[in-house]
Parts: sequence; structure tokens; C-alpha cells
Amino acid sequence: MYRIDLNCDLGESFGAYTIGMDEEILPFVTSANIACGFHAGDPAVMRKTVALALKNNVAIGAHPGLPDLVGFGRRQLDIAPQEAYDLIVYQLGALAAFVKAEGGAMQHVKPHGALYNMAAKSKLLSEAIAEAVYKVDPRLILFGLSGSELVSAGERIGLKTAHEVFADRTYQLDGSLTPRKQPDALITSQEEAVRQVVRMVREGKVLSRQGQDIAVKADTVCIHGDGIHALEFARKIREDLLAGGIAVKAIGKQ
Amino acid sequence: MYRIDLNCDLGESFGAYTIGMDEEILPFVTSANIACGFHAGDPAVMRKTVALALKNNVAIGAHPGLPDLVGFGRRQLDIAPQEAYDLIVYQLGALAAFVKAEGGAMQHVKPHGALYNMAAKSKLLSEAIAEAVYKVDPRLILFGLSGSELVSAGERIGLKTAHEVFADRTYQLDGSLTPRKQPDALITSQEEAVRQVVRMVREGKVLSRQGQDIAVKADTVCIHGDGIHALEFARKIREDLLAGGIAVKAIGKQ
Amino acid sequence: MYRIDLNCDLGESFGAYTIGMDEEILPFVTSANIACGFHAGDPAVMRKTVALALKNNVAIGAHPGLPDLVGFGRRQLDIAPQEAYDLIVYQLGALAAFVKAEGGAMQHVKPHGALYNMAAKSKLLSEAIAEAVYKVDPRLILFGLSGSELVSAGERIGLKTAHEVFADRTYQLDGSLTPRKQPDALITSQEEAVRQVVRMVREGKVLSRQGQDIAVKADTVCIHGDGIHALEFARKIREDLLAGGIAVKAIGKQ
Amino acid sequence: MYRIDLNCDLGESFGAYTIGMDEEILPFVTSANIACGFHAGDPAVMRKTVALALKNNVAIGAHPGLPDLVGFGRRQLDIAPQEAYDLIVYQLGALAAFVKAEGGAMQHVKPHGALYNMAAKSKLLSEAIAEAVYKVDPRLILFGLSGSELVSAGERIGLKTAHEVFADRTYQLDGSLTPRKQPDALITSQEEAVRQVVRMVREGKVLSRQGQDIAVKADTVCIHGDGIHALEFARKIREDLLAGGIAVKAIGKQ
Repeated sequence: MYRIDLNCDLGESFGAYTIGMDEEILPFVTSANIACGFHAGDPAVMRKTVALALKNNVAIGAHPGLPDLVGFGRRQLDIAPQEAYDLIVYQLGALAAFVKAEGGAMQHVKPHGALYNMAAKSKLLSEAIAEAVYKVDPRLILFGLSGSELVSAGERIGLKTAHEVFADRTYQLDGSLTPRKQPDALITSQEEAVRQVVRMVREGKVLSRQGQDIAVKADTVCIHGDGIHALEFARKIREDLLAGGIAVKAIGKQ
Repeated sequence: MYRIDLNCDLGESFGAYTIGMDEEILPFVTSANIACGFHAGDPAVMRKTVALALKNNVAIGAHPGLPDLVGFGRRQLDIAPQEAYDLIVYQLGALAAFVKAEGGAMQHVKPHGALYNMAAKSKLLSEAIAEAVYKVDPRLILFGLSGSELVSAGERIGLKTAHEVFADRTYQLDGSLTPRKQPDALITSQEEAVRQVVRMVREGKVLSRQGQDIAVKADTVCIHGDGIHALEFARKIREDLLAGGIAVKAIGKQ
Repeated sequence: MYRIDLNCDLGESFGAYTIGMDEEILPFVTSANIACGFHAGDPAVMRKTVALALKNNVAIGAHPGLPDLVGFGRRQLDIAPQEAYDLIVYQLGALAAFVKAEGGAMQHVKPHGALYNMAAKSKLLSEAIAEAVYKVDPRLILFGLSGSELVSAGERIGLKTAHEVFADRTYQLDGSLTPRKQPDALITSQEEAVRQVVRMVREGKVLSRQGQDIAVKADTVCIHGDGIHALEFARKIREDLLAGGIAVKAIGKQ
Repeated sequence: MYRIDLNCDLGESFGAYTIGMDEEILPFVTSANIACGFHAGDPAVMRKTVALALKNNVAIGAHPGLPDLVGFGRRQLDIAPQEAYDLIVYQLGALAAFVKAEGGAMQHVKPHGALYNMAAKSKLLSEAIAEAVYKVDPRLILFGLSGSELVSAGERIGLKTAHEVFADRTYQLDGSLTPRKQPDALITSQEEAVRQVVRMVREGKVLSRQGQDIAVKADTVCIHGDGIHALEFARKIREDLLAGGIAVKAIGKQ
């Protein structure tokens, strides 16, 4: 039977600042990527978000990012692979402690923002990230862009991995996402977005912007946790997937 | 037989900045308190310091501090107990991940600077800190000022604790350290400092500034890792303790 | 003729995080206290907020705070007077540069949060803050709690000062604000809050919680820029003041 | 008559951390680039360094960097021109306030590290930086790599500029510095380094690694303030320049 994981970035509030609708989105997703204090999140937010995920029976993952709070981890920073390794170990450990303190278990790791994008294309960065995850806990599942260097590096070192796809982004012939700066980067129709996901799951294919089908592996779909239509879309994709005979389950669940 | 642990704050460098003579001091101490990135230290420094401690067969502890890098964690910050709990869980977890990645095990936790001093006197802060340590790993040993609220809170929650004494500080009749601002706060004679420690270990007593002996429990002695006489003193106290028939061993070792 | 300044904390957003309704509140106030990047605000937010204040013809002030972004500058930090001096010079200068770049002029300085509260009671901190302001620009007006050490220190060094009062807080017999933890600290009725302000301006008196009138100097009133009733109250107090024959003008305007 | 400015990065200490030998190097240089708290430096260090420069009669400049303390501003960060503008205005203003408080005047601005390198090649970044400097104070002199985009942008907007050369770095045929990763990037002989500078000043030429002379404009030479040979070299280059009939003067001095 077909199955898919729905993941969402959570715990991105910081101090007096709030981002996202964590409580509202949690019932619709199966895996939570929780920010670890470098690009977003703080210790209090991490504790609360872990507790909230456990309460909603949503699998927990670390969402480590670049040390760039003011840039929300979205600006590329020219770090060496060793620096990436260190950043991952640190943030992963910090979140793991909250998960342990709350009586839960961590399922996965998904790098955030610019780190995610840099890793997708860099074999060296990806190997450093995969090694960091593996050394801290080899049972963790590494999330990366479907078909990317990050997923490959995870597989090589012996980690279980999850190929991530995007519902609302269009794809290029080489399997990469259309850069956001291009006009046709985003899929704004909810219907079309869900159709794209269902086809990726059932057929392992997506129609590229160049008009040709390409193969794509879809283990988990990224759902956005903020924006006015986020909740509506989360509800819709979940319902449509289930209606289409696709089980919606955390990647690490049997 | 008498025994004592010698602990030292390590891993306090940050980025391009160096503090301390970690490699030189490690052969003389038995427990390393490693900074966790809030008041000092960074992920790269943490990784290297953990590896160095393991190489020197020195027991590893987390040395969490207040989020005040520019103040080196020495300025009191009015945090709520819940905030102390969160800070401890976060930093402890971050260091634990490096220890795990390097194949070691963590022995203890010792709060740093102003957090250590605030906890010594605050039952509520101490309970929050002890709970954080206990929830992350109940096998960890909590270091606190001898006879302080922190040690009491650790004992109440079921943690093993270590009463910490200072070689170069004088004591008040109530067991507290003479505040640094007072003229007779520091013991500058190495001979006298060592004698004070030996007596604390063998007799459980220290002569207070008020001229009366007070009882003091001495499980571990704080050794400074920087300053021109640090290495010389570390070497001397170790030798004199051994010569005095006192075993120098990490607190967690059999 | 009676007159009053209405000031509001603005520019408290940070990176991807938004706090406050700056654009909406600006038409109702006469002085903007703009965060300077330590407890809130960032360089981009500072630039935009300065431009917005100039556009609305609202006088600009620096709102320097403690270096505690995660605590929003609300937690007391035990800083030395010299450290307060340095923090003020730094933040004041940073904001001044944006004001200059946008073609404006700075009117005032109002310390934020815990720094404001600490200064209100500490002569030494207040003198350091006043000296910092004076040395950077002796024409700046120093805002402080009415009757506080901060205002006194400002006057002693030769600065023009503004005694600040609060519309929605109750007062103690000694002129201090009732601490927020007490049940009657806040005035929740808008009517009552406005009446309190009008009386402070016209009669220089406020009824203390102890039931006796006390003298209070009211040069400027603090208006909140967030919360659901902020806009409504800002509009109301402005209208009622004008209706009561009190001119609403920036403190530095003729 | 020939003349040259000798500039040095100063004020790079932070909190409890010390870098550089500011007091020792100041007597040999004519312009001080003072870190502004983003990549290095803090408010206390800035105040002390400004005072020290004034005492030594050394011209003062702001040395703004990327917001990357742990990376010392040496890692490229993908910032937009607007972000560069904001960073420069903020840091420049912060330093200017200390200069004003200490009774001095600012002479110049020199971006630090990765920001300097990125600006050297990017017209857009350079224009943003030049505009920031110009808007805060059009009398400031903009330092940039000799012949770089940064110097061009400064000239276009109407700033006085200083073409900076390096004594201990080799040059490529296109006028760029040989990247540090290449084996012949550094000139280790002090004699050769000084000869290169003298020739750049007197003849406006430097021998590129490709064996051909290239034209180079030399207004100011970067002198390092740390490293074991820094003082020795600073003394030597100053003496040799004077002996070669080249006046050593701050760029902004008559």
C-alpha cells in the first residue's frame, strides 16, 4: 500500500516573538521538524514544541540551521564541512535532550533553509552532516531533498533516509526545484499541488517545467506551518491523500 | 582511604579567541567542566575539548552558563527557574552529543559563574537545575558549592552530587566563600591553599575568616586553568595531595 | 497652556519576526522610542522605522536595552555603570546613523525594560546613562520614570529631561509604580486610565493606591504599541487630551 | 613627495577574550580600523580602542563586518546589497558615537574580512556600502582593495577613497591578490615585503606572479596587529619607508 509522511517546520518562535501556528497545524502532520536555536527557536520554545508534538503523537525531528537568527537561516554562509558537522552535532544534541526530558524519542533530522539547499548540492557538506547524525544516533532518519546529495550521503553512511518532495513547488528536468526567483516556481492552486503529490507517491513521477516527466522518490512532503492558507492546505492534502488510498504516517512508524 | 577529585573549567575558547591552556592543564586534573556555547565555547571548541579530555582519560562534565558571551556568564541575570531548567537541558544535550559522537560518556554537570553562584543560594533555581539534569540523565553527578542549595536539590531529586571546595578562596563562618571584593577573599600562598584543601579532605574542616573551624564536605576541588601560576599550582596540589595519602580520582570513578 | 507628549516603543521586530503595529500606531503618538538591536530591532528594522517615523512627523528617540534578545531586555542583568555607559553609547550611535542617513534628527533617549527599571532606582547606573547620552549629544532629551534617579541624573549633567508617566499603571505612595505582580497594578478601564493622565497633566497629581494624592510630573505618557486595544486606546487618549484642552506635542517641539 | 598611510585592524578583543597587541602596534601605524561588534569587538573594547588611538594620535576608522562573531567575519554570507547598507550604517554609527564621546573625529571606513572581499568584486554590494558611508557622513574616506569595485563605487558617489595594498601578499596579473590557498600567496621575507611596498608607492607598480609588472595604486598599506612578527615588521616597514623618502601619514592628514 502507498504511504507518505507529512512533515512541517515547527518551534520557530523565539523569545517574545511568535511565528507559525504550531498547535493548529500539528493535528494534520506526521513529522515535526523542530528548530534548535540557531536560525530560530530557543530553549523554552524547544521544550514546549517537543511536548506539543508528543501530545499530538507526531514524530519529532531536529531542524538544525545556520547560526543566523536575523536571517532566519536562509542566507548561504560559506562554512567548511567540519563546521557543518559541528553545527549539526550541537543542535541535534540540544533537541535530543528536550525529547529525552519529555519522555519521547527522536525520529529524524532535517537541515533547515540555506543549509538544506547547500547540502543538496554539495557532496562534502552532505557527508559531514550525515556523519554528524550517524555519530550522535545511527537510528535517526535523515531528511533531504529527493534525489539530492544529502540523501545519498545518508545512505552511504548507513542511515535510513527520507526523500522529501514539495507540494507547491515546480520541478526542473534535472530533478531540482525551480528557483523561487523564477515566475513559475510556485504552484498556487491547491488542487494542482495535491495532484502533484498524489502522482509522485503513486507513480514516482512529476511533470517537469520542461514538459517531460521525471522520476522522483517521495517519502515525505513538506507542509508549511504559516501563511493564511497553511491550515486549509494541510487539511486538504491529508484528506485527499487518504481519499486516494495513500496512508499518511510518520516515516519511522511501522 | 581519602580521595578527592580535581576539576577544571575547560573549552572556554570561542571562534578565533583562545582562553586557557587546556592541553597543558589536563594531565593534572581528573574532571573537565566543558563550556557549552552560552557563556563561552562553541561547537568546534566543544568537539576538540571533549576529544582532548578523552585522550587524557579525564572525566567529562557539562559546564552550562547564562546566555551572556560578552560577560562570560559572570553577570547575574534574573532568570526564572523554568528558564534555568531550559538553559541546562539545552546545553547539557549539546555537550552530550559531542561526547557520544566521540565515543565517551558524561560524568557530571557543573553550572558556571553567576548561574553557579545564584543556584548556591536559591532553592528554586537549584531545584530547576537539578530537575533538568535528572530528566536528561539521572546518572549524571551534580557539582555544586559545598553545602549549597544546589547540592541539596540534587540530593533530594536522587542525583549523585559532588560538594565542591576552593583551594584559593577563604571561607566565612556560615560556609560561604568570602566575596571577592573583600581584601582577604583570596589565598595567594600556594602552600596555604594546598594545606587548606588537605585539611578539608582529611578532617572535613576549614578555618573560617572569623577564626573558628567550620565543617565542610570536600568531594572535588576547583583548579583554575588559566593565569600564570595555574599549571604550577595544579602540579603542586596534585603532588601534595598524593604525598599526603589522598587519592586523586574523578568523582565518578570506582 | 497644558501640553503632553505621547511616546511609544517601536521598531521591535527582528529579522523574520514581527512585533507591534508600528504603521497603525504612529499617527497617534508624538515620540517614537526605536529599539536599537540589543533587546529587539535589527539594522533593517531600524532603518524602516526611522523612515516611518519621519514620514509621520513623529519625533525619534533611541530605545537602548540590555543585550538580551531572547529575554526582550526585560530580565535584570547585573551590569556595572561603565557597562551601562558603553551599551548606551553604542546603541545610541547606531540609531543616530540611521536617523542621519534618512535626513532626520534625534530628539530623545529612553532606556528600555529592565535597564529603565534598574536605572530608575540606581543613582550610579543613571549617572552612567546620563553621561553617555550627554557625551554623544548634549541636545538629546533623556526620558525616565517621573521622579526617578534617571531623570535626576539627566538634570544634574545638564540634559533636558522628560518625566514619564503611565496611563494604565497605578502608583504607590512613594511615587513608584505598583509592581506588576500585585493585583491592582494595572488600570484596565480606558476611561479611568485617561482620567488619570489628564489629572497628572493638569493638576500634577495622582491618587496613590494608599488613597492619598501624590505629586507627579507628567511630561510624556507611555502608549503601548501592541495588544488588541492599543490602537483604540491611543486614539482615545489623544482625543480626550485634546478635548480636555491639553496640547499633544512632541517634548522637543516648540 | 611620496607618502603612504599604514593601517591596522584593532579593537578585535571581545568580552573576556583578547586578540591583538593594540597598545604595542599603535605607535607604528597611522590609521586604526576599529571593529564594531559584529565580527569582533564589543562596546567596552570600542571605547578603550578609540581612546587609545586618540592618545597615540592615530586616525580612527570604522571596521564593520558581517554578523558572524564565531567566524570572525571571515566566512562569506550571502547578503543582499540592502543588508550590506544596513550593516554598515549601524556599525559605523555605533563607532562614531564612541569617537564623538571621546572628543575625536572619524577619518575612514574599511569593511572587514569576507565583506571586504565580497565588496571588492561586487558592484552592487560596493554601491550599497558606499551609499551607507556617504549618507552617514560624506567626509569619511572609504578604504578598499586597490583597484576594486569598492573603491570605484566610493569614487562614483563622491567619497574620498584610499586604495589599499598588502605588503605580505602576492598579486595576480589582473591586480587581485593571490588566493591564500595557493602556495605562493604570502611573502614571508620581510625584506621582500617592504621592497614590494616601496615600489608600489614610488613607481605604482608590482610584479605579478605571472612575471609581468602591473599598475597598482597604493594609498594605504595593511599592517597586521597580531602574530609574533607583527611588531617587528611594523617597526621595520615604517623605518624603511621613511629611509626611502616616503612620508608615513594618515590618509586624511594634510
